[in-house]
Amino acid sequence: MSRVIRCGVAQMGGIDLAEPRAAVVARMLALLDQAYRQQVQFLVFPELALTTFFPRYWYADLEDADRFFERDMPGPATEPLFAAARRTGIAMSFGYAERSGPRRFNTALLADGQGTIVGRYRKVHLPGHADHRPELPFQHLEQRYFETGDSGFRTWPLLGAQIGLCICNDRRWPETYRMLALRGAEIVALGYNTPIPNTDYDEPAHLNMFHHLLSLQAGAYQNGVWVLAAAKCGREDGHQLMGGSCIVAPTGEIVARTLNDGDALLVHDCDLAMNRLIRDHIFDFSKRRPQFYRDIAQG
Amino acid sequence: MSRVIRCGVAQMGGIDLAEPRAAVVARMLALLDQAYRQQVQFLVFPELALTTFFPRYWYADLEDADRFFERDMPGPATEPLFAAARRTGIAMSFGYAERSGPRRFNTALLADGQGTIVGRYRKVHLPGHADHRPELPFQHLEQRYFETGDSGFRTWPLLGAQIGLCICNDRRWPETYRMLALRGAEIVALGYNTPIPNTDYDEPAHLNMFHHLLSLQAGAYQNGVWVLAAAKCGREDGHQLMGGSCIVAPTGEIVARTLNDGDALLVHDCDLAMNRLIRDHIFDFSKRRPQFYRDIAQG
Repeated sequence: MSRVIRCGVAQMGGIDLAEPRAAVVARMLALLDQAYRQQVQFLVFPELALTTFFPRYWYADLEDADRFFERDMPGPATEPLFAAARRTGIAMSFGYAERSGPRRFNTALLADGQGTIVGRYRKVHLPGHADHRPELPFQHLEQRYFETGDSGFRTWPLLGAQIGLCICNDRRWPETYRMLALRGAEIVALGYNTPIPNTDYDEPAHLNMFHHLLSLQAGAYQNGVWVLAAAKCGREDGHQLMGGSCIVAPTGEIVARTLNDGDALLVHDCDLAMNRLIRDHIFDFSKRRPQFYRDIAQG
Repeated sequence: MSRVIRCGVAQMGGIDLAEPRAAVVARMLALLDQAYRQQVQFLVFPELALTTFFPRYWYADLEDADRFFERDMPGPATEPLFAAARRTGIAMSFGYAERSGPRRFNTALLADGQGTIVGRYRKVHLPGHADHRPELPFQHLEQRYFETGDSGFRTWPLLGAQIGLCICNDRRWPETYRMLALRGAEIVALGYNTPIPNTDYDEPAHLNMFHHLLSLQAGAYQNGVWVLAAAKCGREDGHQLMGGSCIVAPTGEIVARTLNDGDALLVHDCDLAMNRLIRDHIFDFSKRRPQFYRDIAQG
């Protein structure tokens, strides 16, 4: 039985500090509507889709950053997204800053075509720093504003496929894709916000996009999975985020890619038979040799 | 203190069944001499460098394949390589079929500039099959002729660097590079014989080279290591092997690459400061989260 899922990647351009949630959600609804007209079944939005990439700002009082967080999901601002999912039957994933009691996470959710949240992933690989570095042109304070996610790498059945979630910096670590694939993932949904330049060292500018694509393509190929990668990109109050949203096949080939840094939709019919081609013929996991991998899981 | 090691990759063209060991060793000596004139300090030869890629042939009696194996290393045929290493001061790695008592392995050795063997790696990820498949245009009988290596992924100090070894199909599995990097590898030496086409399925021809390079580049980048990849390539009695020998920097960028399918030498000054750039600024291993990687080491 052929399993083909029409997948969409909803890239979003920059969100300024002053842009209200309602305006952001309206942009997401426009992308969702565009996806609906193209009969998309599963749509992936970026990491922290609802706000500017606030970890670039230092707030001495943590609670001053709470306005970027969602205490309820759905909440008043996000309910229209779930209503639209119900109306259109589109399953979706998007990222948001999650306030759960006293705890804060960088989270992505998975909702089915009835607008019901069926899965939630809390980011494991937090980049950046926790301390104020005023000498930098901008901060990268994910280690301040978020705890390391506690959900681990999980997958959920949806539309007859098994879906895994990961977020931004997770995509660079090969363990992410491997854990998801070992747990059955056939499609990996990934949202990201990648500030450029990398202020941590004097990185040659061309390496940003190369490393981004290399990580996605290797992860897709080495695990025989589809990767749906959605950027928030463009400029946010003058601060640049990298684009490069794409859909990567289980062969590691990029089958769709944005060429702009604004709101944009990618659509591809993802054939899950391609996953089997790679996993049966190149990466038969029964040929893995975990007895020699022990160091990888020790820490 | 700057640590720069002039590394060489000695690609080898095909070796026909009838080509005697002495002729093969003479070709290797010519490459070694060429490397010496370019002041190479560490030279990497291919997997199973001394013979044709014999796993393509079915021998009903295993002992009929023993002529491809080395019982002694150095042995009479290979001693000139070690003598040349001593004379030139070049450290080297090459692959060979190892007969160790009753056991058979696909092995790579590491020798220092005094021609002393300081390390040995027995291939862990054996591709192919163990049964005779006469319907195929050629066999891929590594699972028949070799046991799964028992040495695990190790690294050795050499020339002030830490060297890891892996062989052919190992390069496609992200665990290989990760294990080597966790064990300190700064340079990964890799020999390979990759028969094309992949007869296991109807693989589009362009994917061979793409997947080869993708695996090397991702492994180098995601672990901040130099990768020295040496092919045996070209035609062996009409059977094609893939080329694409290259040197990959810790950024994942290919800094040297062969453009032919015959004997050829690549040389590059590998600066180990580049490893630190990646490992300090992008892949700080203290930001790995092994508590979430447990499945990877379970079998």
